[in-house]
Amino acid sequence: MKIGVVAVSSRFSVETAKAVEAWMAEHYPSGEPKLVFHPSVHAKHGHFAGDDATRARAFVEFANDPRLDAIWFARGGYGSCRIAEAVIPQLNDHARAKRYLGYSDAGSLLAALYKAGFEHVAHGPMASDARRGAETGRRAVEWLTKGAATGHEPSLADDPRPAAAFNLTILSQLLGTPIEPDLSGHVLMLEEVSEAAYRIDRYMFHITSQASIRRVAGIRMGRASDVTPNDPDFGMTAEEIARYWCARSGIPYLGAADIGHDAENKIVPFGAR
Amino acid sequence: MKIGVVAVSSRFSVETAKAVEAWMAEHYPSGEPKLVFHPSVHAKHGHFAGDDATRARAFVEFANDPRLDAIWFARGGYGSCRIAEAVIPQLNDHARAKRYLGYSDAGSLLAALYKAGFEHVAHGPMASDARRGAETGRRAVEWLTKGAATGHEPSLADDPRPAAAFNLTILSQLLGTPIEPDLSGHVLMLEEVSEAAYRIDRYMFHITSQASIRRVAGIRMGRASDVTPNDPDFGMTAEEIARYWCARSGIPYLGAADIGHDAENKIVPFGAR
Repeated sequence: MKIGVVAVSSRFSVETAKAVEAWMAEHYPSGEPKLVFHPSVHAKHGHFAGDDATRARAFVEFANDPRLDAIWFARGGYGSCRIAEAVIPQLNDHARAKRYLGYSDAGSLLAALYKAGFEHVAHGPMASDARRGAETGRRAVEWLTKGAATGHEPSLADDPRPAAAFNLTILSQLLGTPIEPDLSGHVLMLEEVSEAAYRIDRYMFHITSQASIRRVAGIRMGRASDVTPNDPDFGMTAEEIARYWCARSGIPYLGAADIGHDAENKIVPFGAR
Repeated sequence: MKIGVVAVSSRFSVETAKAVEAWMAEHYPSGEPKLVFHPSVHAKHGHFAGDDATRARAFVEFANDPRLDAIWFARGGYGSCRIAEAVIPQLNDHARAKRYLGYSDAGSLLAALYKAGFEHVAHGPMASDARRGAETGRRAVEWLTKGAATGHEPSLADDPRPAAAFNLTILSQLLGTPIEPDLSGHVLMLEEVSEAAYRIDRYMFHITSQASIRRVAGIRMGRASDVTPNDPDFGMTAEEIARYWCARSGIPYLGAADIGHDAENKIVPFGAR
């Protein structure tokens, strides 16, 4: 099995790639599965891992390549919203059969794939997250190669409803755009990193005020880590904020989600399981 | 003439209120117009100038009060989106006749008022901005009391189309919510403060990807000040980012706007003039 690694967002360093390869060599010493980095994965264009055309071409090439079994997003940062809409019409049946795994900024591309009817799209650790811990990378690789449910977010085991997971900022910024998927009836899980509490509150206002999001089955709040200082203290945790806006908007709040920008970040396949 | 000052967002300090009063005493020594601070303007509730009920009640009381001629938002920060939808149905005909001036976070409330058909709503300096310079406060007071066009954003003089102006973040966060006004055919002016370039880019993706925003007459980019560091350098200025997304989305880019989080911030009345 071969997993293609593509960078669709911020620059991806050679050092990180080497660390991911070393992690693979340690944990999958047989060389199976094999990671294949796209040749342009270390391209640089200002903030980005190459300009939009380069990143889009790399993604389409790897997604369409019948020799690759899955696509693993290299890292987050920012940039996938710039190419998400344009790549979809270029994808073939090989692309449609593959698994795609990532989160954070890659959520824009996951959203576009899911909207386009791709059936194997999941929120979960990126390639760069393999360094976070042995289990982090392992649950990603096991899902990418076998669709293993062992790394699934635990609430999925007892809830047969379709699900989706997003970074809160990323979801806010794709609402109303051509890449917003229909999340009606879905359990929507959210996570955040490095945002102030007042911004989490504003994102939750934005999200829960949408007619589209009011059709979800419910919201679960994952971890909001590295919340930046708020002076004075905002007075509510991220979970309290989520509960507040769910209550205001009539969206069921379903509890915590075991996702976040950390080693424990679990896998949430989009849609039905 | 009496101008009511209300705090609908973050805490408003006694020191700032005293500075605004001192500025008025210096520049309007006759005591005309008179500033009237709502009794709850210095209320505190965590981040906010009082809890949602307190801020909403203060705004409704002053807006509906026939003894007051205009409403000046005390300051920005965060919080007006939490009360904007709820206050509108409580406003009477006195409220509808008044002028309302502010920007930044107050943009959520300006949007809701404009959507509700209020005819005297403008982006422009807040009460706390009077300290920024003699002309800053003067253009605000002259508009609040007389609707003076002398402080208008200069491009308005030569462009008969309706206009509106927003902080970029605030507009992004009200899109698709019940307080989003119809900006079809409007010249839309944008400004930003203390955001990283990659976030400005993401906001412009979000905004220009909306079907609703693609119906504007065009976009003018105001100043983006205190742009926070981007490592590596993002590679585009805020105006270049605005031009890029306008070109991508087919929205005419009309040039710069003389608005921003600074002393030069001009007045943009919402709608037709």
